Amino acid sequence: MARWDTIAIVGVGLIGGSIGLAVQDRGLARRVVGVGRQLSSLRKAKRHGTVSITTTDLAGGVHDAELIIVCTPVADIVTRVGAVAKSCRDGALITDVGSTKAEIVTSLEAMLDQRATFVGSHPMAGSDRGGAENARPDLFQGRVTVVTATPRTPRAAEQTVAEFWEALGSTVVRMTPSAHDQAVAMISHATHVIASSLAAATDPAELVLAATGWSDTTRVAAANPELWRQILLSNRDAVLQSLDKFEKVLSTFRAALQCSDEARIAQLLEMGKQTRDALGS
Amino acid sequence: MARWDTIAIVGVGLIGGSIGLAVQDRGLARRVVGVGRQLSSLRKAKRHGTVSITTTDLAGGVHDAELIIVCTPVADIVTRVGAVAKSCRDGALITDVGSTKAEIVTSLEAMLDQRATFVGSHPMAGSDRGGAENARPDLFQGRVTVVTATPRTPRAAEQTVAEFWEALGSTVVRMTPSAHDQAVAMISHATHVIASSLAAATDPAELVLAATGWSDTTRVAAANPELWRQILLSNRDAVLQSLDKFEKVLSTFRAALQCSDEARIAQLLEMGKQTRDALGS
Repeated sequence: MARWDTIAIVGVGLIGGSIGLAVQDRGLARRVVGVGRQLSSLRKAKRHGTVSITTTDLAGGVHDAELIIVCTPVADIVTRVGAVAKSCRDGALITDVGSTKAEIVTSLEAMLDQRATFVGSHPMAGSDRGGAENARPDLFQGRVTVVTATPRTPRAAEQTVAEFWEALGSTVVRMTPSAHDQAVAMISHATHVIASSLAAATDPAELVLAATGWSDTTRVAAANPELWRQILLSNRDAVLQSLDKFEKVLSTFRAALQCSDEARIAQLLEMGKQTRDALGS
Repeated sequence: MARWDTIAIVGVGLIGGSIGLAVQDRGLARRVVGVGRQLSSLRKAKRHGTVSITTTDLAGGVHDAELIIVCTPVADIVTRVGAVAKSCRDGALITDVGSTKAEIVTSLEAMLDQRATFVGSHPMAGSDRGGAENARPDLFQGRVTVVTATPRTPRAAEQTVAEFWEALGSTVVRMTPSAHDQAVAMISHATHVIASSLAAATDPAELVLAATGWSDTTRVAAANPELWRQILLSNRDAVLQSLDKFEKVLSTFRAALQCSDEARIAQLLEMGKQTRDALGS
């Protein structure tokens, strides 16, 4: 017997679609409802088998679900979770996949009543290629998912959401919303700004000489600009602090290069290598 | 019948080893001699089948070769090509694989006599993992190799070197040494500084949250610091200019983020995406 009867996914792009595929592959729910606003996206989700039923009717779509995962762009999450909370059944559990957490969780805690419970999530997985056509059932396999809790989060709800991500193959890390936002500011958000700036600063005429170095370093710059604009603005202060930290290292590097300080250049390259090697390939 | 009787490779790491494998796989030479200074590297090259014979004796190793490819770190290339030119037979052709060209080609043109001919090369292929154990016969397949020529380069020699790289599967692009150094300053060298600085600026404690974004963006930071120190110093001025260009875009980005200028942020992300998309995946 499946762990869940009905799971609803609001927003069936890359992440929502991958959740749908993973839930079905692993037999975690009897039914996966995909809710979306655009018929074209819903048709694509259906065609790629990411969900069992699709609907543009949010209220009807989430009505029977015990678990609802909101996978819309960051700027829509609060509104969509609010709408879900108005239509879902008593005791339903709502989570999201937003790349930032503090703004979302704070707004929702001020807004939601006791009927539905919201627990913030952020699976650290994605691709520069969005849409249900790029969804993969193993997207969360071996990846970390952050589950955030605040003093107001019921322990049982937090636990259930954590178990859901674990069932999709993720390793769950628990953090407060603001600790999450601090932690991803460099490793994800400032990284995106840097990769994007490098791509923007490169003369397209020189691309003929691009090898795997430039191509890997700038890969994330191909992602959806609108989604990333929202993410960066939603975690602005922490991203600016991370950019400061990066620019400090870069200007040390530049100064060392300017005066051909061999030892300092070697040391900076070694520092970078040590941290990169610590991650593995 | 093979195109060449004997090819000698001086320096049998990743690049030299991959050339050896490719030459043998494609039957381009009857014999591939690997010349190195360290017995351990030569043994590894032999064990991985990258060359047919190995020797630490440079003079003896290159004596019978019609084509000699010097694959040592950038800072050693001039000295090693000089030594090769003293020992090789009349009419032998020497090339290299150095990531910078102006310094190397200028020094060698001032140094070499007429007996041997040097033509600079730079295959735009590599890996953050060095050594013969990572050599691959298809490393140059579908990649660009820059062949540099100056007014003093004999046309026939330039043509032969270009044909050699084409025989390994490369597309050859001809440039002057200084045009090459300008062109790779951003796409390869400044890219390395940026990726390395990002890795160095990242708190290792946050690596638990690293997804493919950070991992791709910083991949090149894992490369050998000593090799890269030499490359950066050998193309210092052009790298500094490229870093300027990058920092200008980054500071525009920072300013837009600081004042939450949604339109400007979107525009910068869009610019980066356009250039990245122009390369393809």
